[in-house]
Amino acid sequence: MLENDRTQPELAQAGAIQSLSAGEYGGWFEYLVRVYPHHTDYGGMVWHGTYLAWMEEARVESLRSIGIEYADWVAQGLELPVVELSIRYHRAVQMGQAVAVRTRMAAGEGVRLLWDYEIRSADGKELYATAQVTLVGVDREKGKIIRQLPPALKDALTRLSAKS
Amino acid sequence: MLENDRTQPELAQAGAIQSLSAGEYGGWFEYLVRVYPHHTDYGGMVWHGTYLAWMEEARVESLRSIGIEYADWVAQGLELPVVELSIRYHRAVQMGQAVAVRTRMAAGEGVRLLWDYEIRSADGKELYATAQVTLVGVDREKGKIIRQLPPALKDALTRLSAKS
Amino acid sequence: MLENDRTQPELAQAGAIQSLSAGEYGGWFEYLVRVYPHHTDYGGMVWHGTYLAWMEEARVESLRSIGIEYADWVAQGLELPVVELSIRYHRAVQMGQAVAVRTRMAAGEGVRLLWDYEIRSADGKELYATAQVTLVGVDREKGKIIRQLPPALKDALTRLSAKS
Amino acid sequence: MLENDRTQPELAQAGAIQSLSAGEYGGWFEYLVRVYPHHTDYGGMVWHGTYLAWMEEARVESLRSIGIEYADWVAQGLELPVVELSIRYHRAVQMGQAVAVRTRMAAGEGVRLLWDYEIRSADGKELYATAQVTLVGVDREKGKIIRQLPPALKDALTRLSAKS
Repeated sequence: MLENDRTQPELAQAGAIQSLSAGEYGGWFEYLVRVYPHHTDYGGMVWHGTYLAWMEEARVESLRSIGIEYADWVAQGLELPVVELSIRYHRAVQMGQAVAVRTRMAAGEGVRLLWDYEIRSADGKELYATAQVTLVGVDREKGKIIRQLPPALKDALTRLSAKS
Repeated sequence: MLENDRTQPELAQAGAIQSLSAGEYGGWFEYLVRVYPHHTDYGGMVWHGTYLAWMEEARVESLRSIGIEYADWVAQGLELPVVELSIRYHRAVQMGQAVAVRTRMAAGEGVRLLWDYEIRSADGKELYATAQVTLVGVDREKGKIIRQLPPALKDALTRLSAKS
Repeated sequence: MLENDRTQPELAQAGAIQSLSAGEYGGWFEYLVRVYPHHTDYGGMVWHGTYLAWMEEARVESLRSIGIEYADWVAQGLELPVVELSIRYHRAVQMGQAVAVRTRMAAGEGVRLLWDYEIRSADGKELYATAQVTLVGVDREKGKIIRQLPPALKDALTRLSAKS
Repeated sequence: MLENDRTQPELAQAGAIQSLSAGEYGGWFEYLVRVYPHHTDYGGMVWHGTYLAWMEEARVESLRSIGIEYADWVAQGLELPVVELSIRYHRAVQMGQAVAVRTRMAAGEGVRLLWDYEIRSADGKELYATAQVTLVGVDREKGKIIRQLPPALKDALTRLSAKS
């Protein structure tokens, strides 16, 4: 069950905006971020590791948009750690810019989940980075890869993947 | 002048939501965040340094809400670095929770700007942390504290401070 | 008991260097860091939140220097979260610089541990920041403040505090 | 020319240890880190983005070991941003562990520099992650990729690459 702290009207509205924009971009879920000082490095541009945090946020929000609260699954003993990641930086992003982190679940191969990313300007015209991330289902207590995803999670992910 | 990248409809809407909630809480600007994995540490709660990033984001958004784009001021040679900061952690915040970072400019003493913070549950009922941050105006080129804030900035900050 | 992974000759030597320099500075434990790109922000200087990570590292290493492996205490159910922190930034630190993070346990009041910090240039001549951090002992399972520190920890901390 | 702040005996000694261990591992430069709380996430293991910071630190130290101070090259107008990165996480790393980040410059193709990484337990026996990173030389003022590396940098990198 959800804790009260995790449900509240304002963020539900913010979520609605996110879902709406997601629908507009051919199967991509879109998560908007703005570049703050702590995202940048000495060059005045976004530090290359910052994108991984944004990609994680977009992934968690994409799951939330289909009813999967990642924190709840973790509380119940399932984790989805990153086991593989690749990213190409096409163009630097500077402080103050609004950035659209677009993600979609490309495929689920058993307990391995593949996600594609495009990081673009907020209007979608400029491409800043592309990335792929692979997650795998892990049993937190045993510390081992699970044999298959729980049916409720699998069904939700199938719906998410079908959207893409 | 603003770059195109920095203005786009979706974030303007998100900003509208923020301003609305800000208005409801007696002079506090409210900035909503959600706790993602990268915010936490081994204890499953938010790592104590994460709050500084959230406070910076809330401060930049509070300035944006009154028309001050921090990135533009930086581009024009003015910085507002943190020169003093204190924070009390009242209660731990766990992954998945929605958090309201409330801020208001407490006072401007010449080129020193004092900001108060309250970090609460999204419904405002639980108090997680309280903090104070002092900024100072610095000339980027000279690397020195400025004598007085540019009038346009000073006027905007006076309006912000009056709201509190 | 220590895992094999945590003991190895090179770091023991590095620790020896640290202890040596600590001895030279009147009761301060000294931890040396270098400023890498990810520590900086758009201004080319260290981002103000980075210092909290360095201070945590120095604290953990200070405890290690007296035989307390923080990770082992955590594994046994005790945490020492930060409950209060204040920092003054006297002078910006730029990329590439070597920085000495000096810390000493100022006092232990029951289960509250007060630590002082001075962040200086590696030669000790320039003062970059001063800070105070308060930790408190927490029972991980119960999520509550403990009544008193375990005797082994208390004794070690008393020795550490006496050095200061 | 180097600033005084950047040269001091203790770190020179630490550097000597690093170089020594680098020599022992078949052309790899080895950089030792320890896992502190801020490196971890809710799972008690290192957060997957943390490795990028460690890899950057190892790269900068590898360059320092052959006399290239990255901060000085930046001050003179040359940057080496990451343009491509891939990483495979083989095994999770937990808090308190000592970790060896091994790196070597695999190849320099014009202004593109390819680096290989192996992240291992301090004794070298366990493999935690493998990665590849591509950097490219950029003129800071023009914001453009340079045609060729400055001869002094190219020569030093050729020596580094030959070691591998």
